[in-house]
Amino acid sequence: MNKIITISREFGSGGRELGRRLSEILGIAYYDQEIITEIANRTKLAEQYVDQIVEKQPLVSFPIHIGRTLYPVPNPVLEQRQSILLQHHQIIREMAQKSDCVIVGRCADYILKDFSPFRIFVYAELESRVARCSSRCTENEKYSEKELRQKILSVDKKRAKYYNSYTGQCWGDILNYDLCVNTSQQGIKKFSCMIAGMFEQIK
Amino acid sequence: MNKIITISREFGSGGRELGRRLSEILGIAYYDQEIITEIANRTKLAEQYVDQIVEKQPLVSFPIHIGRTLYPVPNPVLEQRQSILLQHHQIIREMAQKSDCVIVGRCADYILKDFSPFRIFVYAELESRVARCSSRCTENEKYSEKELRQKILSVDKKRAKYYNSYTGQCWGDILNYDLCVNTSQQGIKKFSCMIAGMFEQIK
Repeated sequence: MNKIITISREFGSGGRELGRRLSEILGIAYYDQEIITEIANRTKLAEQYVDQIVEKQPLVSFPIHIGRTLYPVPNPVLEQRQSILLQHHQIIREMAQKSDCVIVGRCADYILKDFSPFRIFVYAELESRVARCSSRCTENEKYSEKELRQKILSVDKKRAKYYNSYTGQCWGDILNYDLCVNTSQQGIKKFSCMIAGMFEQIK
Repeated sequence: MNKIITISREFGSGGRELGRRLSEILGIAYYDQEIITEIANRTKLAEQYVDQIVEKQPLVSFPIHIGRTLYPVPNPVLEQRQSILLQHHQIIREMAQKSDCVIVGRCADYILKDFSPFRIFVYAELESRVARCSSRCTENEKYSEKELRQKILSVDKKRAKYYNSYTGQCWGDILNYDLCVNTSQQGIKKFSCMIAGMFEQIK
């Protein structure tokens, strides 16, 4: 079976960078935004729209028309959402079947449960995440520390809501991961090398 | 500065075994019960008594004798406890100064904060911990699953109480560790090799 590493991460913790570096050092595939692009290709929907759906709560309830009928009636928006979620699930499984890979986010740890992926959760102290986000802001994106803190907590809240709803598990609960990595004190570059070293042992 | 790895662990998660294996693979010192033995040697107190004190809540309050005086009066039991806690602190720092090492438990992550240790927390699902404890019971120690579960939760509670009281931090809060390792699915032998591989990268 292929070596699958899934990465869940708190916003601003550097989980995406850690995943990318890990895939480069190990010389294996890396999937992140590529998943959204592929869903958009297959469903012929705009990438931005797909991204929005995959970030939202995935639970789909059938519309009930009071006084008319209890049977579901065709609803194009609902059908689009269902199609996106179906592709999301299918594409991640296809990627895992193809070769060894690192997959960032998108509930891959849950979708690939039967592949026994190595599940990593990347986190950091809030102050460290604020500093990281601040250093990555461009000239046109000037946020105060307070605004960055709010943005970080708000993105985490959305990720948790999506993950909990999709998986029935609790986002960030350490029991859902094999390894939790705190990037507050160790640099991400150094940590990526260290974690790659773990996988070199089980080649 | 020496490479110091501290290991905190949930009861039954195999943290002690992981620490011992890690020290063997890396060829560095390992301290666990050795700390208690050394405190007992220096204080001339029984090892079992020292062990009991180091597992208890370390906060020492002065006895107040109502109606007599508010000044502390000599109290041999209190003095013994203070001496044990002082030695505990001192011995751990001496060990860290001596050479690279793995130190299991005993708030070493907190005591050695200024040594920037690499702080590992080892945990596992309760069912996996029950199975591990059960497989290690001797013929004379037959516990039911329910009893084992109670024992595990009770030991964790004591560890948390001691750690929280000694450090003012929260035992098991992932922000207090650099790496959290879930031994439920990966074997401890394999995981020890993998983690050793991390440190081989930064030699």
